[in-house]
Amino acid sequence: MTEAPSPRTKVRRGAERADYEHDTINAILDSAMIAHVGVQTADGPLVLPMAFGRDDTNLYLHGALANHLIASGTGQQICVTVSHVDGLVMARTPFHNSMNYRSVVIRGEAARIEEPSEQLRALKIITDHVVTNWDLGRPVSEKDRKLTRVISVPLAEASAKIRSGDPIDDEEDMAGPWWAGVIPVSTVLGEPRTAADYSGDRPVPDSFTAHPG
Amino acid sequence: MTEAPSPRTKVRRGAERADYEHDTINAILDSAMIAHVGVQTADGPLVLPMAFGRDDTNLYLHGALANHLIASGTGQQICVTVSHVDGLVMARTPFHNSMNYRSVVIRGEAARIEEPSEQLRALKIITDHVVTNWDLGRPVSEKDRKLTRVISVPLAEASAKIRSGDPIDDEEDMAGPWWAGVIPVSTVLGEPRTAADYSGDRPVPDSFTAHPG
Repeated sequence: MTEAPSPRTKVRRGAERADYEHDTINAILDSAMIAHVGVQTADGPLVLPMAFGRDDTNLYLHGALANHLIASGTGQQICVTVSHVDGLVMARTPFHNSMNYRSVVIRGEAARIEEPSEQLRALKIITDHVVTNWDLGRPVSEKDRKLTRVISVPLAEASAKIRSGDPIDDEEDMAGPWWAGVIPVSTVLGEPRTAADYSGDRPVPDSFTAHPG
Repeated sequence: MTEAPSPRTKVRRGAERADYEHDTINAILDSAMIAHVGVQTADGPLVLPMAFGRDDTNLYLHGALANHLIASGTGQQICVTVSHVDGLVMARTPFHNSMNYRSVVIRGEAARIEEPSEQLRALKIITDHVVTNWDLGRPVSEKDRKLTRVISVPLAEASAKIRSGDPIDDEEDMAGPWWAGVIPVSTVLGEPRTAADYSGDRPVPDSFTAHPG
């Protein structure tokens, strides 16, 4: 899809960096650990970091803001933004400094998931989003499930925006002496540390040491 | 400060992890590369990633959302959220999984900076936020400055929230066999890469190779 799925989803600034392809959007979501979720409150906008997961049609959230959203009633509009910083772009002049990044913005209506099997499915998706572990621990009980609020947001209105590569300077600055280039940035997972109060004898699960890029 | 500076700034969920000290808040801001900024629009909330900087009293933003904010008139309420993920907390049951993180949420009224010297001062603060470089490039011209929109947000209404350490499991799960611990997460700067079209002979500036943690 090279067109925005809705007017409010269209990237307005830097439109040449916009991408509305599902594969592009999903790849950015899949390699991120958290989303920043925005809602409107009586006291102004509120943005909170949250864990998330997705399937082909929805993004799933649980926890603090889910409680807030649920308290505010159904059908609330939310914005879910996921960003990776890939580099600091140092131009010949600070005016042209930039960052290399990949980001996704999803706008939509939040819906609470109440059906138990749907709720468990969404919780497994969120749990396994960064590292697969849902099936490795003590299974989630009926009591746990009832304490957990889960909401879904359709992926229908999503856009990606990507910048990569070198700085873009003004022609008259190109011959100047000022250094120009990119400082790469990456997020890395380290070696798992066993909890101080762990008394079992199982090794660290394999999926916990497979480091995403 | 152990009390929230305003009712809307009070951390409601996980209040035992809240911190309203300026030093704590500033340290979290200073080690972050981007903020996620939320505003209310006619189409619902919108959250965008942005570069930022701060001094003792204000946070500064420029670019895309600044344009949007300015177009929407002065005195708009915004929320600026900065988050670091420090670890994936793998509990004995997925129900108690968590993340180690440090986050700051700032709520306030955005104000456009129009006075030229104040605008340049804010741009230098934003430019030098991650790596010091304002004085290393071709100076920002009057034309550049006029093309740049800068806004400030007071730091008065800010809260931090921090989680660290091991998973916290239910007593009855403690003797179980399931592995428990933390997978550390960190953001790292790599070796600077000189732009392909750079024709000068200056080395990479020292400040570009001093890697923040």
